[in-house]
Amino acid sequence: AASRLRLSGLCFLLQILIILLFAVFVRYSPESSPGQCPPQLNCSRSRQDSGLQQPHFQDVHIQVLLSFGLLLVFLSRYGAGSAPIIILIIAFAIQWAVLIQGFFYFFLNGKIYVGAQSMVSADFCTAAVLISTGAVLGRVNPVQMLLLALLEVPLCSLNEHILLRLMGVSDSGRSLSVHTFGAYFGLMVSRVLYQPHKDKRKREEQQDTGHQMDSFAVAGTIYLWIFWPSFPSAATVHDSAKDWAVLNTYLALVGSAVSTFILSPVLSEESTPQMVQIQDATLAGMAVMGMAGDMLVTPFGALITGFLVGLISSLGSKFFTPVLHSRLKIQDTCGVHNTHGLPGILGALLGTLLTLLATADTYGDRLEFVFPLVAQGSRTVPDQAVTQLCALLLTLVFAALGGSLTGAVLRTKVLRCSPDPQHKENSVLCEVKLGSC
Amino acid sequence: AASRLRLSGLCFLLQILIILLFAVFVRYSPESSPGQCPPQLNCSRSRQDSGLQQPHFQDVHIQVLLSFGLLLVFLSRYGAGSAPIIILIIAFAIQWAVLIQGFFYFFLNGKIYVGAQSMVSADFCTAAVLISTGAVLGRVNPVQMLLLALLEVPLCSLNEHILLRLMGVSDSGRSLSVHTFGAYFGLMVSRVLYQPHKDKRKREEQQDTGHQMDSFAVAGTIYLWIFWPSFPSAATVHDSAKDWAVLNTYLALVGSAVSTFILSPVLSEESTPQMVQIQDATLAGMAVMGMAGDMLVTPFGALITGFLVGLISSLGSKFFTPVLHSRLKIQDTCGVHNTHGLPGILGALLGTLLTLLATADTYGDRLEFVFPLVAQGSRTVPDQAVTQLCALLLTLVFAALGGSLTGAVLRTKVLRCSPDPQHKENSVLCEVKLGSC
Amino acid sequence: AASRLRLSGLCFLLQILIILLFAVFVRYSPESSPGQCPPQLNCSRSRQDSGLQQPHFQDVHIQVLLSFGLLLVFLSRYGAGSAPIIILIIAFAIQWAVLIQGFFYFFLNGKIYVGAQSMVSADFCTAAVLISTGAVLGRVNPVQMLLLALLEVPLCSLNEHILLRLMGVSDSGRSLSVHTFGAYFGLMVSRVLYQPHKDKRKREEQQDTGHQMDSFAVAGTIYLWIFWPSFPSAATVHDSAKDWAVLNTYLALVGSAVSTFILSPVLSEESTPQMVQIQDATLAGMAVMGMAGDMLVTPFGALITGFLVGLISSLGSKFFTPVLHSRLKIQDTCGVHNTHGLPGILGALLGTLLTLLATADTYGDRLEFVFPLVAQGSRTVPDQAVTQLCALLLTLVFAALGGSLTGAVLRTKVLRCSPDPQHKENSVLCEVKLGSC
Repeated sequence: AASRLRLSGLCFLLQILIILLFAVFVRYSPESSPGQCPPQLNCSRSRQDSGLQQPHFQDVHIQVLLSFGLLLVFLSRYGAGSAPIIILIIAFAIQWAVLIQGFFYFFLNGKIYVGAQSMVSADFCTAAVLISTGAVLGRVNPVQMLLLALLEVPLCSLNEHILLRLMGVSDSGRSLSVHTFGAYFGLMVSRVLYQPHKDKRKREEQQDTGHQMDSFAVAGTIYLWIFWPSFPSAATVHDSAKDWAVLNTYLALVGSAVSTFILSPVLSEESTPQMVQIQDATLAGMAVMGMAGDMLVTPFGALITGFLVGLISSLGSKFFTPVLHSRLKIQDTCGVHNTHGLPGILGALLGTLLTLLATADTYGDRLEFVFPLVAQGSRTVPDQAVTQLCALLLTLVFAALGGSLTGAVLRTKVLRCSPDPQHKENSVLCEVKLGSC
Repeated sequence: AASRLRLSGLCFLLQILIILLFAVFVRYSPESSPGQCPPQLNCSRSRQDSGLQQPHFQDVHIQVLLSFGLLLVFLSRYGAGSAPIIILIIAFAIQWAVLIQGFFYFFLNGKIYVGAQSMVSADFCTAAVLISTGAVLGRVNPVQMLLLALLEVPLCSLNEHILLRLMGVSDSGRSLSVHTFGAYFGLMVSRVLYQPHKDKRKREEQQDTGHQMDSFAVAGTIYLWIFWPSFPSAATVHDSAKDWAVLNTYLALVGSAVSTFILSPVLSEESTPQMVQIQDATLAGMAVMGMAGDMLVTPFGALITGFLVGLISSLGSKFFTPVLHSRLKIQDTCGVHNTHGLPGILGALLGTLLTLLATADTYGDRLEFVFPLVAQGSRTVPDQAVTQLCALLLTLVFAALGGSLTGAVLRTKVLRCSPDPQHKENSVLCEVKLGSC
Repeated sequence: AASRLRLSGLCFLLQILIILLFAVFVRYSPESSPGQCPPQLNCSRSRQDSGLQQPHFQDVHIQVLLSFGLLLVFLSRYGAGSAPIIILIIAFAIQWAVLIQGFFYFFLNGKIYVGAQSMVSADFCTAAVLISTGAVLGRVNPVQMLLLALLEVPLCSLNEHILLRLMGVSDSGRSLSVHTFGAYFGLMVSRVLYQPHKDKRKREEQQDTGHQMDSFAVAGTIYLWIFWPSFPSAATVHDSAKDWAVLNTYLALVGSAVSTFILSPVLSEESTPQMVQIQDATLAGMAVMGMAGDMLVTPFGALITGFLVGLISSLGSKFFTPVLHSRLKIQDTCGVHNTHGLPGILGALLGTLLTLLATADTYGDRLEFVFPLVAQGSRTVPDQAVTQLCALLLTLVFAALGGSLTGAVLRTKVLRCSPDPQHKENSVLCEVKLGSC
């Protein structure tokens, strides 16, 4: 009974805390009613100068697309039983990220001014938390997951702030601050929490449920194909930059889907791939286009990139995941390393290369939207490329340190619970709970 | 055989009747081609003066969002077998509501001029019908459901017309005319149709299926989170008012989702809530924001409201629903009292309170969109608040009288059918049919 | 093993070929950055003069709606096991159609300039391929399906080019070039591939799974109701024409859904129709509105059309499909004749009739968007009507010849594989594979 009430009590405390912080600090941004906008907040300026741009307010409903796409994707691995926990993480992380990111981006005169942009930023941050969650899903209890979100949101926001604001990195689709950061943060947490006996058992159980969840994988894949190509456009200010990002992402996704059909019969006994593999390749194709999406100026570049990243993701899940588990003692429940970590790094390397090749001729008007500092003449193209590369290293260091720290906190005895046999009857739901205790 | 053909024949008669009425009365609105708009119809004026505003035509596809959200929600209670009946109700009620609402709002020179706005209005009305249906689903047969829709659409339209046009009530998200009206109308019908023995059996069966339908509850919840916050914006004319309604609704939803995790271990044996409970809290959070959505001027207000309504909805389903059943003899199949009725009333009370607190300072430009009569000086703020409160009472009276009347009609012997044992084999589908006979 | 690697090798070859062709020919259209648009490409002109118009780039994400709607629809017949193959067909056909259609529409100075419009056009073509696939799903192997896509895309593009560009046919919702062409192409392939013994067994298996797939049918129907009415608007340039197309499509869909409830108890033992029947009627209602959608000027016309086509589609699946199978030896796995073929022909006939009735008075400003050649005075109304009718005949001839040719290619021995008993264990997946060998 006490263990059941711990989650309830923690939720209550955190929610009351957030309501109080909202009451003290958070106000609606007057940006939506232009007449009211105080000169200090400089509503119009912030659209151009920041790494974050203002989306149209009518697009605000897509704020949750990224997170819910990930939710659907994880269901195909863990079944409907994990949905309540993931929704709790989304609900908590969104509020917490609005607060934390507000302090970084929307703070003026002691108040945070939130608007549609806050929701989109908060959802990016929530997506990073969900990706980390994907590395440990089924092996931590809900209380630990909530604490993971509590700790990761500030670190993720700080990393994003340093990258986008201080270093002037161009990463509109968040290859680095969402995909790479989230994946390696989660993998480090997973490493610190490693327990040899349990993880072996979990692995077998996961494989079993994985085969029944084809319907969820179909739903997740359709969702990603329909909504994700338009997601980066929410964070891109100018129409001409947006269009190419959408088309590049879509072509990469098409290429990576075909890749799975090429490797599947080579790597396994099946002549056609499972839906989960296609879904993973789709995710990988999108993660790799996060940074490079608005830098690629030719369609075939996007096709090749997607094609290769689909191959690498499939090969990684066959050969690299077992090595990760046996040698590095990192158990990656939902395979986030192959779908977010590796493609994120590859995307950042590709982005660095493309930055080196950027010229005013090939980009035209788009240069000032993709590389504003270069277009303004305050930075040379090689400098920008070095910055992009440094951002990758910084993100990896940040994620590794943050993940270790968080893992150490989650390992404390008070957070672990004893096995709870009463839940065994509900087969899917106990999947999550068994692993958590 | 005769009983099978009754539904078929009724559908045929109603459809032919509707086609004839459409042929005589309904024309496409010339508003979309401005040059053709006759001065009498005064296309531009109607945007400002009416409680209903013109959405962009490109948004017309969201006309069915509300209804289909409810369809998904009911499936998590009643399974895929109830889907055909719900789709029949949607298909019939949409056409019927276009006609009836056309007579109230879009009537000129003996013709009804329909456009995108008609579809959105008709969908609001269809949503009210579906909410009422949720109170009796599984206990009435399809013929009775169709008659319920036939009778409720005019009453709901009349209520909305009185509220929005004649009384000048501000209720852009339809807390009153959809959520409160639909819920109490359905509950009164349920009361009149009460049959002690059958209802007990039905209750047990419903509980059983409820546990298998987690996937539908996941789908319904994701649908509501993604689409519903943007739904009120379809009925709100000005961008600045729309934004706050979206953000307030979203924050209320987040708060109410966390609430279920706080109460679940206290009220039940489970440490995490079922998806159905999260879905119900999500619905409650949205119903409460119908009226207050564009009146709340601070984010923490929306968070607190969502948090409290989530608690109240959970407590209600634990303690109030059994009382409703045993004392008041009202069987509420899909729990619409906790998800639409009570939150609708709370939303209206909150809206009344917020109206009292409204000042030109805090609202700024938004005052004329939220309270046009107050902004024009033709009504004081206290008068507006009294009007909002009267609207709640009027809606309750209307719903109770209309529901009793409809229930009395549905109780007539000719509509009841004898048990039909041949359908028992198809387990899910007969769920609906068993109850109906 | 060799048979498993055939698909893999073919995918590899085709993908490398497509990447090379993209590298040589395809560039992003400079239309999105107006300053860069070369005068030869005449970016602004192409919006008006072509049968295809430029959608807003932000709408590009709906490019995949049509295809994914069809994917969902087929899942309700064939289960999640067929999803990987359908996604492969979509991924390949989209790339191939971008190339082929680029040669027809977006070719200048030896380069194809692709943009959002290319994706929408490619998706229309992919939809035609998927409809054809629906006629033979479960009876051809993946290699044959891929070859079907390879051959159908150029034929479909050629047909569309002749209809829209050379003949000036008005068919914005593609009743002819997608629905009619796709259906009869697939039926001819099915005829050529007819194998008496196997098809009988397949038919029984299909019936079995069909009953379990109600959830997919619910998902498919909801998807179609929400997204499809807004789909034709992607291909319609002017707001006023778009609106009526959306409303007409929606009303047709409502009418056809009610029809299934009228015929269901007459034609079968069930008092309410299966979800699959409602889904089929929804598809039929949409196919019939492809051409007539922006020609109907009265709402009741759309209602009657939908009502009648729903009746015809239901009657067709009861009486005409068996005749098709026993007499004409055409096995129609997913029933595309009743949902796309017949409604497409009826839509074209209705479009011809409506063209005859078109006058400048009833159409007003919309005349130049629906019938640009008539509005410009270069063609009379009867001439336009004759053209629309000829287009129907031409499409049928094209589809029949192309389907026969493709069927003959797919029949070659090297493409047929011997039975593969190892796949039998996986019940759903082998459904597709069993039939394919």
